[in-house]
Parts: sequence; structure tokens; C-alpha cells
Amino acid sequence: MSRRDPAAVPDLVARAREGEAAAVARLITLVEEASPALREVMSGLLGHSGGAHVLGVTGPPGVGKSTSTNALVTALRRTGRRVGVLAVDPSSPFSGGALLGDRVRMSDHALDPGVFIRSMGSRGQLGGLAWSTPQAVRVLDASGCDVVLVETVGVGQSEVEIAGLADTTLVLTAPGMGDGIQAAKAGILEIGDVYVVNKADREGAERVRRELRTVLTMAERDEGTWRPPVVSTVASRGEGVEELLAEVERHRAWAAGSGELERRRTARARREVEAIAVTTLRERWGDVHGRSELDDLATRVAAGELDPYGAADRLLDALSDS
Amino acid sequence: MSRRDPAAVPDLVARAREGEAAAVARLITLVEEASPALREVMSGLLGHSGGAHVLGVTGPPGVGKSTSTNALVTALRRTGRRVGVLAVDPSSPFSGGALLGDRVRMSDHALDPGVFIRSMGSRGQLGGLAWSTPQAVRVLDASGCDVVLVETVGVGQSEVEIAGLADTTLVLTAPGMGDGIQAAKAGILEIGDVYVVNKADREGAERVRRELRTVLTMAERDEGTWRPPVVSTVASRGEGVEELLAEVERHRAWAAGSGELERRRTARARREVEAIAVTTLRERWGDVHGRSELDDLATRVAAGELDPYGAADRLLDALSDS
Repeated sequence: MSRRDPAAVPDLVARAREGEAAAVARLITLVEEASPALREVMSGLLGHSGGAHVLGVTGPPGVGKSTSTNALVTALRRTGRRVGVLAVDPSSPFSGGALLGDRVRMSDHALDPGVFIRSMGSRGQLGGLAWSTPQAVRVLDASGCDVVLVETVGVGQSEVEIAGLADTTLVLTAPGMGDGIQAAKAGILEIGDVYVVNKADREGAERVRRELRTVLTMAERDEGTWRPPVVSTVASRGEGVEELLAEVERHRAWAAGSGELERRRTARARREVEAIAVTTLRERWGDVHGRSELDDLATRVAAGELDPYGAADRLLDALSDS
Repeated sequence: MSRRDPAAVPDLVARAREGEAAAVARLITLVEEASPALREVMSGLLGHSGGAHVLGVTGPPGVGKSTSTNALVTALRRTGRRVGVLAVDPSSPFSGGALLGDRVRMSDHALDPGVFIRSMGSRGQLGGLAWSTPQAVRVLDASGCDVVLVETVGVGQSEVEIAGLADTTLVLTAPGMGDGIQAAKAGILEIGDVYVVNKADREGAERVRRELRTVLTMAERDEGTWRPPVVSTVASRGEGVEELLAEVERHRAWAAGSGELERRRTARARREVEAIAVTTLRERWGDVHGRSELDDLATRVAAGELDPYGAADRLLDALSDS
């Protein structure tokens, strides 16, 4: 079957819904390629997703995100759950793909049919992560995954985005990753549902744990809201991972009962719909008549002939005329 | 004068153009607040910017970005140039401001009237950095800065964005920041015009430098394009900073002569105009009639009743009807 054959989409969707790995992989490739066929794919998956628990895993480079994801998969598989892993690399925009391919990652689970592993770049577009990740998650969800782990590299914007994408967000730290101010600066203290001090056997782990608890206590949260626990792990040896999963389950139960889960999923859908709409507009702005109106406007702004607000007005005026 | 008094904007703009620090600070606050007065501000600055060299400084947390920026300011001041520093913190979205305020940063230059220092959060919005940074840069540029340093925390998306914002992008690394694969993963190898190995007196610096050179050599660049140099510094002692500035000047001259500078500035304006247009639309989608149409569409997507493309179509249809 040709990958580009649009007639094949219904068949692909049907096979993905039966959990066929090759079909799932192709659908996620369509997501990564921003294929026009996605309209039909998403419409075909309608009503078949929403069952999976979406678990975000984030933290700065070097804390052991891949190792922790690997250990979480092992623990989840022990309970028989089907697991999808999406390693999103927002720092791989130019290639459209992640540097570390699926094959070199997580070789522990490479032969397990109950685990689907995929790396995905975000194409560096504004809204790239907001746009593509929910769609890839929806594919994994509809194909029968009970848990979808979304692992994101990065400090900053990407973490904030992952917090919007996940039902439960794990924020990883480790000793030796810089002092407390750096951690706070990284903006991770507002987004975690469960905090993990990985490499807990290393020097300084207790201090990191203590600082994290202190800062989390200082962050005033309203009564009745979730208070994020701090779990210590040595992911490379699987230590603390059962406890971590127990906290994840506890958060899931709280989120489902409190309405937080529904609120998050609606917010996620809101961002996804908005990102699709904005992407559609950007394509429209970029592609019309070869050299676009936007290019002309930008040239005039760069030359100091037009201010950016005036330029944006003209762009929007052209929209309602069309 | 009231900060909210729109009648005061022309006066503020005039005073900023004369380089009055308090007026510059207020204009940047208007940028940070996404004030409606910005239309008038940007229109008032029209034709008064474009002279400054915009120098991006980026790299992962802990490499010494603040120290390097500080050392660059010292070296630039020695040549008599007026310098603006914008420390953009894309990881401070919830507060709307950076954790480390202006007062605790760069105290070496706090009393120098030839230096304007400002921290700015990006509000965590999609397009936050693309939207606000060019405007803050334009304010500093129009107020007489010869060089505007834009320092960004982060790995990932924010670095790619800074590459789009700057005339020349410095990418900082340091020994002990993780291995080569981590560095490549961080996606920094495509965006730098000048690479800096800071903390060059530490163990492993030579290895980092060698690895960086190797990977940069491997990255095939066309004949006649810029080949990014690697400079070693010990920013805390000012070592290597003169050499670094010489490479920055060399890049600036190349960019101006090759047309690259104009190309970058047009691309920057394009993203800014687009970001303003998109922000305007998002406000429109979010604010109409209390509970917005977008909220209703998102609720239906989250409930599995509507697919995200269908929802986006409805959102866009509503746009041309209005």
C-alpha cells in the first residue's frame, strides 16, 4: 500500500483501532508530516479515544527522562497494561524528526507487542507541539493503549506545553542539575502533579528533595486542590518506580473525581483546535500567489515603512474579504 | 503621569527616543503587559529603529549566560557603545515576569547610564516570545542602543525562536553539561552563528570544544555561507570576550554584506506580524459573548463528539462571517 494513497486511510484507521503496530506507526507518521489525510484520520478515530491515561514526563536534559520512562514502562507492563510512549523532541525542528530514533531507545521493550514506542519532532513551528502531540496521543489511545507516556526534552515553553497536554504531569529533577534558583527559573514548579528526584542514590539528592518540598510548600495552593508529592527514584535500577506509579494512580483518581481531568482535556482540545485553525491560516498567509501578502508586509516592516500592528491589520482585513 | 493614560503615549515615545531610561522602561512594561497602547507606541517608533545590532545569547541553564552577557556588556562599554540587555525568560509564563528581577542581575552595570537592563517573561503564550521580544528590541533600538543583547534561558523551542530574533546568535556551552548527543539533541547546532565554550578553564573544556568543532564540520553548509567559529571564554574573568566580540563583528559584517541581515530581519518582521495577527484572532475567539464558541467546540472535541479539524473549520467559518 502506498503511504500517499488517500483511499487507504479508512483501512489504516481500522487496523490501528485493532492495535496493529504498523498501522499505528503510519498514522503517527501522517501526524508528523502534517498530512492533509489527518482530517480523515481524526474523523475516523472519533469516539474511539479518551480511555488512555496521558502521562507527561518532563525535566531538564540529564535528569534521566528516558531511563525513567523505560522503568515506568517496565512497571506498567508488569500489571498487564498496554503502553504507548511518545518521545517528543521540540528541539528537533529542522529535521522534522527526533535525533534519537525509535530503534536506539528503550531496547528493553523493543520486542514487546504491548508497548508502542515512537519519537516525534515538533517541526519548530509555533503550535507544533500543541498541534501534533494531541493527535499522536489520540492515535495511540484509539489503538488500545491504557497509558500513553509523553516524554519531552526541555526547559521552558515545552514543559508548559506538556502540562497542557497530559492528564498527569511528572516533573523530574536530579542532584547536580543546578541550584534551587535555576530550578525555579525553569518554571517547573507550577506544572508538576508528581515530582521525582531521580538518581536518588547520588550525593545531594536529599538536599534537592528538601528544597523541592520547601518550595512546593511555599507555593500556596487552595484547600481541596492537589498537593504534589515528591518521590525519590533510582530509575536505572527501577527503585522507587512502584511508589511513583502509585502516586500517579492517586493523582488520576483525584483528577477524575474532582473534575480536573475533564477540565484539562477540554483545555487540551481547545489548544488543539486553535492550533489547527492557526496553522490553516498561516498556510493561507504563506502560500497565496507565490510571494505572499505577508512577505510583502514583513519587508515593509523590516524597512521601517510600516509598523507591525498596521501590517497585522492588513493581514486580517484580507481574511474577511476572502 | 498615570501608566494607563493613553494620552501620555506620544510624550513617552518622544522621551524614549531621547534615551530616557524611565520612559524606555515604561514602554517595555507596556510590551510585557500586551497593552493596547502598543499600537500607538510602535507607530510612534516607526523609522527610528533598525540601527542596533541584535545579539542573541542562548544555551542550556548553567552554562553562564548571565555572566557572559555581563562580560560582553563590559567589553562593549569599553568601546563606548550604548547597550540594551533584554533577559527573556520563556519559562516564566504564569507570573508574566522573570523570577530574577532587573535589580539582582548585572549589578556591575546598574549605575551606568549607557546600559539599559531589563528582564521580561514571555507569558507562556504560543507566540509570546515572537510577539513581545521584537517589540522590546525595537524600543531599545529606537532609544539609541547600538547593541541589544537578548539573553534567553532554555533548551528547545526558545532557542530556535531566539535564532529568528537575532542578527547574530551566540550559542553557549560549557564542560559538564552532558555529552555530545545531549548537545545535539538540544538542537543548538543549527542555530548558532558563533559558538562559545564558556568555563574554558574547567576540566573537559578542550573535549567539548573538539566535539563541537567536529559536529559543526560534519554539518554540511554550502560554499560561501557562514562557518560558525568556536570561541573559548572564561566569562567570569572576562577571558576570551574580546575575541568573542571580534567574531561577532565579523559575523555582522558578513551578514550585512551577504544580504543575510536583511533576510533575517524580514523573517523576524514576518513572524512578528503573524504573531500579532494570531494573537488578535485568539483574543477574538476567546472573548466573544463570555463563553466563547471555541470553548463549546473544545468541550465537544474532548467528549469525542467532534473531531478537531471539524471544530477548526467551524472556528474559521465564523471568522469570515463576522
